[in-house]
Amino acid sequence: MSRLEVTEKIITSKVTQGLKWADIAEKVGRSKEWVTAACLGQMTCNEQQASVLAKIFQLTEAEKKWLMVTPSRGSLPTTVPTDPTIYRFYELVNVYGTTFKELIHEEFGDGIMSAIDFKMDLKREKDPLGDRVNIVMSGKFLPYKEY
Amino acid sequence: MSRLEVTEKIITSKVTQGLKWADIAEKVGRSKEWVTAACLGQMTCNEQQASVLAKIFQLTEAEKKWLMVTPSRGSLPTTVPTDPTIYRFYELVNVYGTTFKELIHEEFGDGIMSAIDFKMDLKREKDPLGDRVNIVMSGKFLPYKEY
Amino acid sequence: MSRLEVTEKIITSKVTQGLKWADIAEKVGRSKEWVTAACLGQMTCNEQQASVLAKIFQLTEAEKKWLMVTPSRGSLPTTVPTDPTIYRFYELVNVYGTTFKELIHEEFGDGIMSAIDFKMDLKREKDPLGDRVNIVMSGKFLPYKEY
Amino acid sequence: MSRLEVTEKIITSKVTQGLKWADIAEKVGRSKEWVTAACLGQMTCNEQQASVLAKIFQLTEAEKKWLMVTPSRGSLPTTVPTDPTIYRFYELVNVYGTTFKELIHEEFGDGIMSAIDFKMDLKREKDPLGDRVNIVMSGKFLPYKEY
Amino acid sequence: MSRLEVTEKIITSKVTQGLKWADIAEKVGRSKEWVTAACLGQMTCNEQQASVLAKIFQLTEAEKKWLMVTPSRGSLPTTVPTDPTIYRFYELVNVYGTTFKELIHEEFGDGIMSAIDFKMDLKREKDPLGDRVNIVMSGKFLPYKEY
Amino acid sequence: MSRLEVTEKIITSKVTQGLKWADIAEKVGRSKEWVTAACLGQMTCNEQQASVLAKIFQLTEAEKKWLMVTPSRGSLPTTVPTDPTIYRFYELVNVYGTTFKELIHEEFGDGIMSAIDFKMDLKREKDPLGDRVNIVMSGKFLPYKEY
Amino acid sequence: MSRLEVTEKIITSKVTQGLKWADIAEKVGRSKEWVTAACLGQMTCNEQQASVLAKIFQLTEAEKKWLMVTPSRGSLPTTVPTDPTIYRFYELVNVYGTTFKELIHEEFGDGIMSAIDFKMDLKREKDPLGDRVNIVMSGKFLPYKEY
Amino acid sequence: MSRLEVTEKIITSKVTQGLKWADIAEKVGRSKEWVTAACLGQMTCNEQQASVLAKIFQLTEAEKKWLMVTPSRGSLPTTVPTDPTIYRFYELVNVYGTTFKELIHEEFGDGIMSAIDFKMDLKREKDPLGDRVNIVMSGKFLPYKEY
Amino acid sequence: MSRLEVTEKIITSKVTQGLKWADIAEKVGRSKEWVTAACLGQMTCNEQQASVLAKIFQLTEAEKKWLMVTPSRGSLPTTVPTDPTIYRFYELVNVYGTTFKELIHEEFGDGIMSAIDFKMDLKREKDPLGDRVNIVMSGKFLPYKEY
Amino acid sequence: MSRLEVTEKIITSKVTQGLKWADIAEKVGRSKEWVTAACLGQMTCNEQQASVLAKIFQLTEAEKKWLMVTPSRGSLPTTVPTDPTIYRFYELVNVYGTTFKELIHEEFGDGIMSAIDFKMDLKREKDPLGDRVNIVMSGKFLPYKEY
Repeated sequence: MSRLEVTEKIITSKVTQGLKWADIAEKVGRSKEWVTAACLGQMTCNEQQASVLAKIFQLTEAEKKWLMVTPSRGSLPTTVPTDPTIYRFYELVNVYGTTFKELIHEEFGDGIMSAIDFKMDLKREKDPLGDRVNIVMSGKFLPYKEY
Repeated sequence: MSRLEVTEKIITSKVTQGLKWADIAEKVGRSKEWVTAACLGQMTCNEQQASVLAKIFQLTEAEKKWLMVTPSRGSLPTTVPTDPTIYRFYELVNVYGTTFKELIHEEFGDGIMSAIDFKMDLKREKDPLGDRVNIVMSGKFLPYKEY
Repeated sequence: MSRLEVTEKIITSKVTQGLKWADIAEKVGRSKEWVTAACLGQMTCNEQQASVLAKIFQLTEAEKKWLMVTPSRGSLPTTVPTDPTIYRFYELVNVYGTTFKELIHEEFGDGIMSAIDFKMDLKREKDPLGDRVNIVMSGKFLPYKEY
Repeated sequence: MSRLEVTEKIITSKVTQGLKWADIAEKVGRSKEWVTAACLGQMTCNEQQASVLAKIFQLTEAEKKWLMVTPSRGSLPTTVPTDPTIYRFYELVNVYGTTFKELIHEEFGDGIMSAIDFKMDLKREKDPLGDRVNIVMSGKFLPYKEY
Repeated sequence: MSRLEVTEKIITSKVTQGLKWADIAEKVGRSKEWVTAACLGQMTCNEQQASVLAKIFQLTEAEKKWLMVTPSRGSLPTTVPTDPTIYRFYELVNVYGTTFKELIHEEFGDGIMSAIDFKMDLKREKDPLGDRVNIVMSGKFLPYKEY
Repeated sequence: MSRLEVTEKIITSKVTQGLKWADIAEKVGRSKEWVTAACLGQMTCNEQQASVLAKIFQLTEAEKKWLMVTPSRGSLPTTVPTDPTIYRFYELVNVYGTTFKELIHEEFGDGIMSAIDFKMDLKREKDPLGDRVNIVMSGKFLPYKEY
Repeated sequence: MSRLEVTEKIITSKVTQGLKWADIAEKVGRSKEWVTAACLGQMTCNEQQASVLAKIFQLTEAEKKWLMVTPSRGSLPTTVPTDPTIYRFYELVNVYGTTFKELIHEEFGDGIMSAIDFKMDLKREKDPLGDRVNIVMSGKFLPYKEY
Repeated sequence: MSRLEVTEKIITSKVTQGLKWADIAEKVGRSKEWVTAACLGQMTCNEQQASVLAKIFQLTEAEKKWLMVTPSRGSLPTTVPTDPTIYRFYELVNVYGTTFKELIHEEFGDGIMSAIDFKMDLKREKDPLGDRVNIVMSGKFLPYKEY
Repeated sequence: MSRLEVTEKIITSKVTQGLKWADIAEKVGRSKEWVTAACLGQMTCNEQQASVLAKIFQLTEAEKKWLMVTPSRGSLPTTVPTDPTIYRFYELVNVYGTTFKELIHEEFGDGIMSAIDFKMDLKREKDPLGDRVNIVMSGKFLPYKEY
Repeated sequence: MSRLEVTEKIITSKVTQGLKWADIAEKVGRSKEWVTAACLGQMTCNEQQASVLAKIFQLTEAEKKWLMVTPSRGSLPTTVPTDPTIYRFYELVNVYGTTFKELIHEEFGDGIMSAIDFKMDLKREKDPLGDRVNIVMSGKFLPYKEY
């Protein structure tokens, strides 16, 4: 058994039961972004969170334990994603990569936006010309230090 | 002469003059995100915007014309970015890619967040534990259609 | 179980039964292009379409549900396709890529042809020198916006 | 001197003069698709076509000769295109690749759509919901033969 | 079941029975080059050819049907082949690639040698200094056309 | 100065003078296949051959010496060739690679067709359905030896 | 002018003058590790540090300014380093990568060792069996957070 | 059975039993770094070490034997690691690669730090601003020799 | 069943029985280099050799037959080997590649060292400073020929 | 100026003067293998060796200094070499890689053959069936150590 198999079981169970990530997240008591990532094998659950998920997805005790192990992260099977929904994010990095860099350095100096001390919120933005996907990212600025 | 050479001239001119993207953007009358991307060869200027930039960076008439040509987009020299500031965004796509996909489909159905009808805003988020980089992305949802 | 396994079951079933995509499409009530793509795991069915396909290919209830889940798109196992029939399309992108770009920008300004709000029609074009494959593609033009 | 340098000179000249591909094509007496591809180093001109282009772009006699040499085709600097306008075509190959293959074989039997005995027409398709890019491709079907 | 599994069954059966491609080809009534390629999943059989092969390799009815389906071509597991016998052909393309191109264009004008309307013959060439592999390739010349 | 620069000078000179490889080969006294490859930097000339080529292409004494140095072979800028004329040969290796291997081993036992002790002849094959490119390859069979 | 050209000028100047990184670092007043990285275009100098370096390497005012611009990091020309001295570090990541991960998680929980809030010290470790390279790395632990 | 399967069994067993590498290492009588690497298939055990591990993880006699076979090293599934915890080490090689090289050569002359005659120690470094990961690496310097 | 499975069975059998390649080679009556390569699926056995190996490794009749089939060569799972013991050989090719080429051409003229008509001997070289691996390679020189 | 430019100057000078590596090596007083590698930018010279080479190739004082700087090693422009003479060595690693590994471990235990404490000798081996390239490699065995 591996974490990958647990992830596949979770996804299959979700499809079969017709569940929603938002509802699952509410039961876990965390944001839908974090809980979805956790279910997809990208975040680590504590005992209580794992128990909630194990119940929802009918996991065995051993499978539940895998949810509490730090996963090997990276959810994409290829270096450049092929799925159009995911590719658009890669495209943003490609088109705006140097812009992100310039503006972060201009505002904060030399350093990075942390992808670890990080949170995000994805929601619907109503718009008469067609609704929009709205994503707010917030990552701690980490300065390079001299030594 | 090529757009790449114009971009390099702009960057060198900015370094030598010690300018800020925010100030340049104000003169152009557009957001700092769009103007920075335009200067870095990722967006297309109109006549008036190009004139402002040409004056700031002391571009020739021919160089100014390049700013009005749709550029060949893609600002990264490698498939996986090596610069840590830019890499963190690639990492977010890698770790959260499937999460983005799941949540967009759950909320909107089958489709994508447009990277074309798209805007963003990057700013400082004050935090006593260390200030944070805050990025708000807004892209139109585009549904896949049956036919 | 995964969508990939459902796709393989569909393909095997089609080979064994000796069915035609055009006939399947007619039963679904959609174009042969969209229905073929859906069966191959690239488009999402609604309840009724999934039911028709489930009956044709003798899918289980769980397998049918997979047809209604947005798939992870990308039908090629390698970055550059090796199959000659598919490669010729990649070759067209390689040879005509910059031409597509120039002509779209000349006619529409800066933007793209959507691959999401997109439809196509592939048919036989009679020709005394040998019949031709005729493909009509129609994708919405999406302009880059300033902000 | 190389064909690449001639191509760059042509592009720079076009930008500086503010010409349109459609107008250039009319002077050459061929479609805008073929003439654009030829100028971008993907097709071969005959003596008369090269003369017209040489005059438009003020090429030297040696540069004109390069237009009459069969070029080394392939207009993309990377295996997967980074420019969004071009990428969408790659995405179509990725998403619809197996669909193209299935439908061509269903209609014609085993073989390919030629990318050599090929022509295409790209035009604006009026639409109240937003105009569309319309591309008609026509390539001779070439059957695999037994021997 | 997939075509790949049928191919593996054919190869295993051939090894176990100790058959020769030349003999198999004779029973099929086609050249050894075409029949070998067909058995290895690169060509499509008709009903009668498939029946002969099914009998030789003791295939089931379903497996036989796969022989009549146009295969997904490409017999190499890596972009650059690692097997020395196959690599030498890749090396010829690498060393002589530009030479092939120059000589085809010099003799025929702009176009290609078809790899579809193609046949070949591989045989032993007696030589006192050591026998040689002799391969005759014949592919229809396809000219690029203006439009 | 490098061999690459000599090659480029030769190509430019050939284009400007409007020469033919067949004529050049005749002056050198070798086949058009070998002479073209030599001019393109894939074969090594002796003193006399280099002198003939130096005269034809108006090379300096130093440039002529480069023709007599064993070149660093490999004429393709990418692992998978993008030019359609050259790609078709790569496609043949991909589609027929395992067939070449099977038939060579069946006829000769374990070993390879040499790409070093190798010669080839490319010519026009008259055909009422359209002329064909005919290539005869002859490479010494080299057996793997036990030790 | 670009940062890369400044880096090359610095390296050439160091070779020609026969300087040592340790001595340069002492003048700058920072560790040899940080100063070397800064000179090689991987760290950002402040005004005073840049002035010291500009004097040592006889940089122009414009070149000095580049030292104060956040660089585009990544010092390796290939994904897998070819130089044996650098490759050994890549090998350590390859062999010990999962071990690093396991031990960091066991000691600290889910998170990473920062490569930004990071310092290191490389020195000689005397050993009768042959001196050893001793490297002490110290990076802040950054925990993944729930949200 | 293969070493990979033994590794997977060890990891699963560790997760299920909730063991710690440090405790396992103590029983083996070697450092936690070496023992973890050994369990993950990167180091070779002797008879006695393998017996201890076999008992802990309930391995069969055959599985135990695999622990004593020199493994095929390399713990990463991709050339560039995707897991953020491991990636940071790759980033250090990328950012500091040329710095490592310069400083090793300055101190020791031409040669490398051995990754074979190598040991390391990873521990917690207390820090009021947040604890740090502290890694001490020690590898024998190996000089290039003239001959 | 495939040759790969036979190879895995041989390796597992060798590990379980605790055999040595040198002893196996002696029974086969060939060098340890050739026999090891043959067992690892890189060389082809004759009837008698296969019988000896089948007995040692307790292979079935079908498995034994696979040893007599020319294998698909290439023993590395990645283009650049990750295992340090194997990587060092790749490193030698990388560092000494151009040196090999220069010296072979200087001594023999234009051509290659055959990797087919090749043999080698790997043995221990006693040395008071630490024993050395000594490898003698002998490959027939094959000259490029003019034609 | 860079080491690469010095290497190119050396190669050009050798071609123009018609020198031999063996003669150059004799003047330097080292083996032809080491001296060739040094001239090609893969080894580091001391003051006296650099002086000899500088005189032979008419290098400036600055160029001579580059010969004394540890080079960035790696002589191949591509991961898999395209030149046939060099490729054969890569092929040996590919075909014999696992054999090298097995035999080194069988004779010496777990460890590697050093590519640093390494020397080699390439010479002609007379043979009535055609002379052979004979290469003797000798690298110190380095054992992996427990800690």
